[in-house]
Amino acid sequence: MTPPPSSTPGVGESLREEWPALDPDARAAAFQRLPASEAEEFFLGLSALGQAQILLRLPERERRLWLRLLAPDDVADVLQEVEPADREGLLQLLDTVTRAEVRALLAYAEDDAGGLMSPRFARVRPDMSVEEAIRYLQRQARDRLETIYYAYVLDAGQRLLGVCSFRELFAASPSSPVREVMEDDPVTIDEDTDQEAVARLFLRYGFLALPVVDAEGRMKGIVTIDDIVDVLQEEATEDVQKYGGMQALDAPYLQTGFGSMIRKRAGWLTLLFLGETLTASAMGYFEDALARAVVLAVFLPLIVSSGGNSGSQASTLIVRAMALGEVKLRDVWLIARREFLAGATLGVILAAVGALRVVLWQAVFGSYGEHAARIALTVGLSVVGVVTLGTLTGSMLPFLIRRCGWDPASASAPFVATVVDVGGVVIYFGVAQLILGGSLL
Amino acid sequence: MTPPPSSTPGVGESLREEWPALDPDARAAAFQRLPASEAEEFFLGLSALGQAQILLRLPERERRLWLRLLAPDDVADVLQEVEPADREGLLQLLDTVTRAEVRALLAYAEDDAGGLMSPRFARVRPDMSVEEAIRYLQRQARDRLETIYYAYVLDAGQRLLGVCSFRELFAASPSSPVREVMEDDPVTIDEDTDQEAVARLFLRYGFLALPVVDAEGRMKGIVTIDDIVDVLQEEATEDVQKYGGMQALDAPYLQTGFGSMIRKRAGWLTLLFLGETLTASAMGYFEDALARAVVLAVFLPLIVSSGGNSGSQASTLIVRAMALGEVKLRDVWLIARREFLAGATLGVILAAVGALRVVLWQAVFGSYGEHAARIALTVGLSVVGVVTLGTLTGSMLPFLIRRCGWDPASASAPFVATVVDVGGVVIYFGVAQLILGGSLL
Repeated sequence: MTPPPSSTPGVGESLREEWPALDPDARAAAFQRLPASEAEEFFLGLSALGQAQILLRLPERERRLWLRLLAPDDVADVLQEVEPADREGLLQLLDTVTRAEVRALLAYAEDDAGGLMSPRFARVRPDMSVEEAIRYLQRQARDRLETIYYAYVLDAGQRLLGVCSFRELFAASPSSPVREVMEDDPVTIDEDTDQEAVARLFLRYGFLALPVVDAEGRMKGIVTIDDIVDVLQEEATEDVQKYGGMQALDAPYLQTGFGSMIRKRAGWLTLLFLGETLTASAMGYFEDALARAVVLAVFLPLIVSSGGNSGSQASTLIVRAMALGEVKLRDVWLIARREFLAGATLGVILAAVGALRVVLWQAVFGSYGEHAARIALTVGLSVVGVVTLGTLTGSMLPFLIRRCGWDPASASAPFVATVVDVGGVVIYFGVAQLILGGSLL
Repeated sequence: MTPPPSSTPGVGESLREEWPALDPDARAAAFQRLPASEAEEFFLGLSALGQAQILLRLPERERRLWLRLLAPDDVADVLQEVEPADREGLLQLLDTVTRAEVRALLAYAEDDAGGLMSPRFARVRPDMSVEEAIRYLQRQARDRLETIYYAYVLDAGQRLLGVCSFRELFAASPSSPVREVMEDDPVTIDEDTDQEAVARLFLRYGFLALPVVDAEGRMKGIVTIDDIVDVLQEEATEDVQKYGGMQALDAPYLQTGFGSMIRKRAGWLTLLFLGETLTASAMGYFEDALARAVVLAVFLPLIVSSGGNSGSQASTLIVRAMALGEVKLRDVWLIARREFLAGATLGVILAAVGALRVVLWQAVFGSYGEHAARIALTVGLSVVGVVTLGTLTGSMLPFLIRRCGWDPASASAPFVATVVDVGGVVIYFGVAQLILGGSLL
C-alpha cells in the first residue's frame, strides 16, 4: 500500500498519456529522461509488464536501483513477465533476504493466493502488552512492510493465533495483553486458493488485508486489497474477451503482438464457422422449398438474427450473475422458467413488429402478392419460436458449460448465436411448411 | 473499513446461500431469526438494496438500531434504494449529527465522488507536533471514523493543506510539526468527479483513500478503496450487460422484476430487429438472382454470421481496452490499420475453410453440380470481404459511439452483428454477380 500520493502533474503525466503507443525501446528511453522527482511515482504506477520492459533496457546499475524499489510480491510479478533466461540475472540484483522471499513466492501459481501475497506483514506475540505491541509496530513501521494496519499474532511455530487492527490496539487499554484484544478466529485464505475466490471474500466484507496460511495453519503472508483491485480488473477483462468469442489476451490490446492476437481470435472463429456450416446443411435440406418460394430467403437473416440477439442478452445476464455469485447451478430450473417466459414475451413483441413490416410493405409496394397474409403469419410465428429458443439457449448454455467444469463466460454471444442459427433455420422452414404448404409451397 | 473479521461459519453463511432465491418478506423474516452474534456481520455484508428491504420490514425499534449501525455514506446508499416516501421516516431515526451528514451526502449524485464519500475522516492541524497528532488521532480512533490511516491536515477554513499517513507519523520524530511531515501537494478528487474516473485514480496508484474537495479547496470527505471495489464491480456489470445488447439492470438479475427486465431487453431488441429488416430490403433487391441460383441462399447464414462473429471479437477488444484507458480516441487510425490487417488475415483463414467445405461436399455428394468451383470461389471471396468488414466495423463503432459522447459499451455484439449483416448481404450478392454472372446467374 502506498504513502499518500502527490498530485504534481507534469512530464510523468504526459508520458503516461503517450505510453500505450510507444514500443519498449522508446519507453525505456523516455523513462530515463524523466526527472528524478517523477520517475519513482511513474515506475511504481506501471504494470508488471511495463516495469519488466523498462528494467531489461536499463544499464545494470540503474536496473538494480529500480528493482530494489519494489516489494517482493511485485518483484515476483515482474519476473513472471520476463523470459526465463533473464530471470536469474534479475534475482542476483536483489539482497539475500529479498531474493529468498521472491524465490519462495515464485513457487506459487500466479493466479493463487500464494502468488498474490506479500511475505512482509506485521507480527506480534500473544503475551505482549498492547503498549509493547504498539512500540514494536512503531519499529516495524520503518521497515518496508506491506501494511501495519493489521498486526498478526503468531505463536513460536509461526502459527496464526489471531489478528488485531491497529485501531483496536490504539483504542485498547495499554496494559492489556494482546491475547485479550485480538480477534481469535480470523478469516484466513489457503495458499492455493484461486484469486477469484480470494477476490470474492474481499468483496463480501470490505477487508483491507487477509492472512494466507498453509495446511498446518502457519502464516505465510498477507494479501492486500490493492492487489485485489487489480485481480478484479484482470478477471473482468478475461471474462469480457471470452464473452466476445475469443481466447483472453495475456497483455493489454496494444501490447499484444499481431501473430499472438490472430491465434487467440482464429481458433474460436474457425470453430464457430464450422458450427455455422451446419446451417448450410440444414438449408440444403430445404432447397426445394426455397426454389418454390424465394421470398422465404428474404426474411431468413432477419429471423435467424433475432434468435442470436435475444440469446446474447440472456447469456450475458446469466454469465455475469454467475460471475458475481448471484446465480448458482441449482437455480437452473428457476431460471429456465423465467427465461422461457421472457423469451416468449419478447418473441411476441418482435413478431408483432415483423408481421407489421410485411403487411406495411404489402400495402405500399405490393411486395408479397396474394400470399402476403400467410407470409406475415409465417414470419410472426417463426420469430416467436426463434426468440424463445434463443433466450432459452442463451440462458441454459452457461449452466451446461459450468456443469462440465468450464468457464461459463465461454457461452459467448457468437457461440450462442451459432447454436441458435441452426435451430432458427429449422423452425423457420418448419413453420413455412405448416402455413404455406399447399399454397405457396 | 472493517475490523479484522471472524470466520465462524454458521446460520449466517447458510442464509447467505439461500438469499438470492428469497423474496423480500422471507428475507426480513429469516434475518430476524438470525442469532445476535451473526446478525451484525450478516447485515453489514448485504448490498444497500438488501439492507433497505430488511429495514423497511422491521419493527420501528429494531429499524432504528440497525440503521444506526451504518456509517453515514452507507445510510445515504440505503436511502437511495427506498421509495422517496419512506426516506424521511428513516432519516428521523438517526441522531441529529448523522442526519445532517446524510442529508448533505444525499445532495450528491449517486455516481459522483460526493456520493461515494464519507464525511468522517481524521483531521489534524499543521502546527501540532507529531506526538500531539498521534495522541489526537488516538482519541478520534474511538469515534466511528471511516479510517484513521490517513490524517488530513486542514487550516481554520477547512481547506486541505496536506496529508500524512499514520505510518509516516509513526516513523517521524515526535517533536517535529505535522507541517514538516505531511505530503503538501496531495492528489484530491473534485466532489462532482464521476465514480469511474475516481476508480481509475485508485487503480493507477493503489491508494487506500483519497480526499474529496469542493471548488474552494475545502475538504468534504474521503473515498476509501473498499467503496471503489464495489464501484468497479458495478461498472463492469453495467458494461457487460450493455455489451450483451440490452440496457443495464438496476439490481441483481434475480431481484429484478419480470416487467422491468422485459423493458430493459425489449428496447434494444426491437431496435436491432428494425435494423435487421434492412437485410430483408437488401435481399428483396437480389430476389431475381436468388430465384436463378437458390444455392446462394444456402450459404447466406454462414457468410453473414462470420461477419457478426468477427465483429463481436473486435468490438469486445476495443470496448474493454477503452474502459481500461488503454486505448484513446486519438488511437483510431492505429487501430483501424491493425484491425484491417487482422480482419483480412482472419478472413483468409475462414475463406479457406469455407471453400474447402464446398469442394469436399461436391466431391462426396456432388451437391453443387457443374458450378462447384465457381461457388467455392464465391463463398471464399465473400468470406474474406465480410470478415474484413465485420472486424473493421466492430473496431471502429466504439470510436464513433464514444465520439458522439455515448458509452462505447453500447457497441454491443448484437449491434455490430446487425450493422454487418446488411453489408454482408450486399458483399455476398455483389461477389456472386461478379463470379457467377453469365454462368449460374
